[in-house]
Amino acid sequence: MKLVVIGGVAAGTKAASRAKRVGGDELEVVVYQADRDTSMSECGLPYYVSGLVGEREALIARTPEEFAGRGVSVKVRHRVERIDPEGKTLTVRDLDADSTFRDRYDRLIVATGAESVDLPVPGADLEGVFTLRSVTDADRIRAYIREHAPERAVVVGGGYIGLEMAENLRELGMAVAVVEAGPRVAPTYGQEISDRVREHLQKHGVSVHTCASAEEISCAPNGENGEGAEQVSTVRFEDTELPADLVLVGIGVRPVTALAEEAGMKVGETGAIEVDEHMRTNLPDVWACGDCVQTVNRVSGAATWLALGDVANKMGRVAGTNAATGEPTLRFPGVLGTGIFKVFDLGVGASGLSEEEAREAGFEPMCVEVEANDKAGYYPGAEPVLFRMIADRESGRVLGAEAVGAGVDKLIDVTATAIWGGLACDDLVNVDLAYAPPFGPALSPVIQAATVLSGRVRGADKGD
Amino acid sequence: MKLVVIGGVAAGTKAASRAKRVGGDELEVVVYQADRDTSMSECGLPYYVSGLVGEREALIARTPEEFAGRGVSVKVRHRVERIDPEGKTLTVRDLDADSTFRDRYDRLIVATGAESVDLPVPGADLEGVFTLRSVTDADRIRAYIREHAPERAVVVGGGYIGLEMAENLRELGMAVAVVEAGPRVAPTYGQEISDRVREHLQKHGVSVHTCASAEEISCAPNGENGEGAEQVSTVRFEDTELPADLVLVGIGVRPVTALAEEAGMKVGETGAIEVDEHMRTNLPDVWACGDCVQTVNRVSGAATWLALGDVANKMGRVAGTNAATGEPTLRFPGVLGTGIFKVFDLGVGASGLSEEEAREAGFEPMCVEVEANDKAGYYPGAEPVLFRMIADRESGRVLGAEAVGAGVDKLIDVTATAIWGGLACDDLVNVDLAYAPPFGPALSPVIQAATVLSGRVRGADKGD
Repeated sequence: MKLVVIGGVAAGTKAASRAKRVGGDELEVVVYQADRDTSMSECGLPYYVSGLVGEREALIARTPEEFAGRGVSVKVRHRVERIDPEGKTLTVRDLDADSTFRDRYDRLIVATGAESVDLPVPGADLEGVFTLRSVTDADRIRAYIREHAPERAVVVGGGYIGLEMAENLRELGMAVAVVEAGPRVAPTYGQEISDRVREHLQKHGVSVHTCASAEEISCAPNGENGEGAEQVSTVRFEDTELPADLVLVGIGVRPVTALAEEAGMKVGETGAIEVDEHMRTNLPDVWACGDCVQTVNRVSGAATWLALGDVANKMGRVAGTNAATGEPTLRFPGVLGTGIFKVFDLGVGASGLSEEEAREAGFEPMCVEVEANDKAGYYPGAEPVLFRMIADRESGRVLGAEAVGAGVDKLIDVTATAIWGGLACDDLVNVDLAYAPPFGPALSPVIQAATVLSGRVRGADKGD
Repeated sequence: MKLVVIGGVAAGTKAASRAKRVGGDELEVVVYQADRDTSMSECGLPYYVSGLVGEREALIARTPEEFAGRGVSVKVRHRVERIDPEGKTLTVRDLDADSTFRDRYDRLIVATGAESVDLPVPGADLEGVFTLRSVTDADRIRAYIREHAPERAVVVGGGYIGLEMAENLRELGMAVAVVEAGPRVAPTYGQEISDRVREHLQKHGVSVHTCASAEEISCAPNGENGEGAEQVSTVRFEDTELPADLVLVGIGVRPVTALAEEAGMKVGETGAIEVDEHMRTNLPDVWACGDCVQTVNRVSGAATWLALGDVANKMGRVAGTNAATGEPTLRFPGVLGTGIFKVFDLGVGASGLSEEEAREAGFEPMCVEVEANDKAGYYPGAEPVLFRMIADRESGRVLGAEAVGAGVDKLIDVTATAIWGGLACDDLVNVDLAYAPPFGPALSPVIQAATVLSGRVRGADKGD
């Protein structure tokens, strides 16, 4: 029995390892990976660009040699160009040999991941304009920085990757401007949190331009000795021209689905591959997982697509197990849309639905904001955090949370666990969390927020 | 309508404030507090002794004047000496005036708290031997340190307070020895975690003696010029004499129940006052809350007693509300026994049942230990953490967790929330927690542990 996995980053390698463990000697497992690297942490890339993470090896969880030791054959620089689901064959290009061959499979897992969206403006292909999705991308940026010592960077896009890169380029000593097309940075968060992120960026010397849609990237009008003529020098939006020796485009990612679609795999409303809760596609003996598939938001019930390493890892475990057994052994129950990032020393995180998403999903959301500290107020080094909880007025069910400041990861994870368990705010009023002065206030912001909201549930008369 | 609250620390003041808010103008609320301080954070005391928290005011959430502004009359240095539940009267001693008077109540809340257990050995009353339970105790220790500049301290007791004090006395530059009667420090934790705490204490220059039951405390055999003759100089266990210029006794606390018992209130198997889930005692119109009452462990169903500020606060809210309405408006659902402390830069926490407690409660516990980091392994400053999860082999239900190292508060709080919600380890395999490299590994130790355990649930065949 032969299992082929297309894609060798988080979901693909997890699925392959897991399938091999479950399937044992009976199961041959081959992974095709187009990039030269496999099993790398894409989330760590911004920190590798700045050198905070010094060695590229540190980002690679497992090499092809290590996979071979576990009985999984990982072939890097091999791109699958075609899937024939009827004949159960694949057309594979060996990128180094520049040749093509056919392979066959009994079972197939598609884990083709996501790719950066390119900026559709003139000059986006100039030297010094980058996206960041792979270690190879990061190597290119590092090499460019070494060679050209850029002093001014423009980051196009104010989402996770843009803001993380703003921090890391700033840490390298560059003057950094963020250019965001929408009205605010960290756009998936509420206004209050967005505002704090913006202030924090500015406090750290990053200039922030919102409602600023980059329209053109230009090269230096006259490079000395003809050099640098193709090299980026400005980013323009409306009448503003920002000087730029380096441009980082972080305007989003999209699922890589062309190969799957061509083979007849169904793509869902989000544009990603449709799978059932067992990670099966509509094609027989074909599973899919990771950044290329859509899943369901457990709170709203809506189809959702996100590209996150931890989710990909979990999906890979389910797909790998089920592909090995050929049965619906494991189930992937969906996501809450939990996310977190750090920008300088500010943490920003969320889980579940925003107020707006909750309303769209048919809930009657009520919200509360709690200002607290990450330690007892009197304990030295206590830092502020703003925590926001959203619950349904009718049922009291906790729908979402977002937080900015110190210790956000704990508050978001506690709320995510509560949402995952279907708890109502009333259930959280007395939840027995850990308290000592170095770890938080006596009553966690989660408890404070739940207490206020529990008094507002329809029919309740409990106050705060 | 008049409500009297006996005791003005966490539970008492919370109950009083809450009752006033619910009861409004109709309700007169009086708090009698024997100590000179009210509404203080007892958990912060060790840090006040070392001066890490510099101002005593910082530990006091609200003064009697501030309570007065909210319509709550707090009388400090007033000790209630007798309750007459039939006549609904109290005998109150004004400690400053050294006089006694009678008061009456319509409703009564008992929040008499807990007190330190004295060491029952000769010399325990010598100058320089302290327990730490109130700001007054801490003031005494600070004054003694200022006056005598002790160089060598012995801490008797290796629990929370003993270890926190070992750290804080060490921070003051003293040579510190911990003397613990049992076989290990942090005795409520497993062997592995205890060992790490011990190593960490030793690494920070604290000597640790276990199976060492302090038998005698002696004073200096010959004080110069007759001074210091009553002052502590050694602590002896068996043949060992440890030099000690200061002794801190932290061998435990017990509920203060004499007043309640004398009035006919029923005391439970734990020695604390018995209340129902609405915090009612067996006497009409009398509620009780905080460190003087027993509650139930929600996992084992067993009666339990613990003295923790956050629990006291939650109980106070329930007792205050119900005393104001005279109805069973709110319910206190019990505890998980969650606890946490820090010793130097090591966090130690637990929630739910230990393996042994789980077995005693009739479960068939299975355990797993996960070694992880508090950040992605490659992210600078990643620190190790050991996380241990306990679940029931039959049902898969999560029963408990303990952790030592960096970021334990998050792991314990997530698990506590899961236990609170009645989740099984299988439910946690795909829980959507927040991941980014500065905040943890891609798969939280909670998920890693749950994944391993979910494969061991009876009848499961899921592996890890």
